Amino acid sequence: MLCKKCFTQSIEAKVRATITRYHMLNFDDHLAVAVSGGKDSLSLLNILAKLKRYRPKTTLTAVTIDEGIKGYRDEALEIAAANCQKLEIPHHIVSFRDLYGLTLDELVQKARKKGQTQLTACAYCGVLRRRAINVGARQVKANKIATAHTLDDEVQTILMNILRGDIARLSKEKPVTSDAHPLLVRKIKPFCEIPEKESALYAYVRKIAFQDMPCSYAGEAFRNDVRSMLNRMEEKHVGTKFTVLKVMERLRPAIEQTAKKEDFKTCVLCGEPSALDLCKTCELLGHGR
Amino acid sequence: MLCKKCFTQSIEAKVRATITRYHMLNFDDHLAVAVSGGKDSLSLLNILAKLKRYRPKTTLTAVTIDEGIKGYRDEALEIAAANCQKLEIPHHIVSFRDLYGLTLDELVQKARKKGQTQLTACAYCGVLRRRAINVGARQVKANKIATAHTLDDEVQTILMNILRGDIARLSKEKPVTSDAHPLLVRKIKPFCEIPEKESALYAYVRKIAFQDMPCSYAGEAFRNDVRSMLNRMEEKHVGTKFTVLKVMERLRPAIEQTAKKEDFKTCVLCGEPSALDLCKTCELLGHGR
Repeated sequence: MLCKKCFTQSIEAKVRATITRYHMLNFDDHLAVAVSGGKDSLSLLNILAKLKRYRPKTTLTAVTIDEGIKGYRDEALEIAAANCQKLEIPHHIVSFRDLYGLTLDELVQKARKKGQTQLTACAYCGVLRRRAINVGARQVKANKIATAHTLDDEVQTILMNILRGDIARLSKEKPVTSDAHPLLVRKIKPFCEIPEKESALYAYVRKIAFQDMPCSYAGEAFRNDVRSMLNRMEEKHVGTKFTVLKVMERLRPAIEQTAKKEDFKTCVLCGEPSALDLCKTCELLGHGR
Repeated sequence: MLCKKCFTQSIEAKVRATITRYHMLNFDDHLAVAVSGGKDSLSLLNILAKLKRYRPKTTLTAVTIDEGIKGYRDEALEIAAANCQKLEIPHHIVSFRDLYGLTLDELVQKARKKGQTQLTACAYCGVLRRRAINVGARQVKANKIATAHTLDDEVQTILMNILRGDIARLSKEKPVTSDAHPLLVRKIKPFCEIPEKESALYAYVRKIAFQDMPCSYAGEAFRNDVRSMLNRMEEKHVGTKFTVLKVMERLRPAIEQTAKKEDFKTCVLCGEPSALDLCKTCELLGHGR
């Protein structure tokens, strides 16, 4: 039980400790902060803005992806913009329409019309948003991307990868990503040791305006299952999430040896980093067909 | 959908394939089959009895541990004995009373009287039963122990070890255990690729008499949570359990390197294999205090 001031300070200190522990920042980094407009990303933006006061050579640019989800993202964009203005941080928006010629709404409609119902909106969005953030970071000339993935997000992803048997992803998804391709901007996750609850509480306590509405597309069913299981476990056995994060950290070097060394290639169509000859983005957009 | 005969044959073929895949048996092994009297262990005993017909040099002895749980184990003992008689397999019983001087009921009562309520009956039973099976196998001069741990049991244990952050156990618990101490009999798990449902169905179809009553002590809460989570996942995403088993097999060699090489020691009090100087059994029984 902490008072508001001490709670705020404790979270900020924890984030600084995480940044130090994982060697996330150099003194002169230009960080593209992935800001959705939700509580986690805006808490992160606020904490990084505070951190910047003592790091005069650090540059921050907020990058928001406008997938084009009517009645949802438009509101989030305004909230993100207002926060950036208040914090005096430049705000860069990358839209699916500009990048891919279509909004997510249009892509989903198109797929439904063609009867391609096996892919959910989240399946498109996951791939296309990841690409958009990487492109956006390069557009603002950032050398790193900071995302607000919390302890909960990280541990859910670890368990999902185990339950799916995806050793490659198990080895790749970590607090600081590897330098795998010249066009791939390194990602850091300063909230990887912060439980989602604390990130939310930070936003409330600091009176940060954020979007509270869930996305109009239903979330990933699999992640939702894993999330509720982990929350139940954490309730009964406090510390479970942190334990999983730490056990995976100890095992990751060994797992990286086991995972096939899959070097990033360059997509033959768009020239972006890709696991295969044709990248997932081009595949989903139906290019090259 | 298979008819009874084909289902029976398919399970038996799967178990033979598992035995071959993991090199579980030599032609002249003497197997101590751990038989509780439940569906899994009696299905295993029946399948191994069939297997023995084509392996004249293989010896089977059923070993049942009598923990001394009134109204539960006594019934199971009779059922186990009847099955052994029918299959013409020698039956060896090891009781907690003979081995430790006290039944589980008495141990639990003693602990409760002393106010030691932090340890559940299952915590005692897990340690003492494991020891008893190992001792029993040596008494009948078996060179291997076969246990009926199913795919479900194995995957639950894997996830429990991840959620508990127990890298040592994650590396140790596998379909064929290592030869870690001269007094430790190697364990094999011929059902590690058989879902519990199929093992149960095998018992029903072959009309094997088994004990259906659950143990009078409440099960491990943690395992129950993990079990229901995995069952939900399997229902939605068929193949999840098998995937986890296989992913852990691919990762285990690397995990074994990470786990501290903890050689088995010999307990200073009882001379049995132990992780520490004083074994868990002696610690629980309050010896050396």
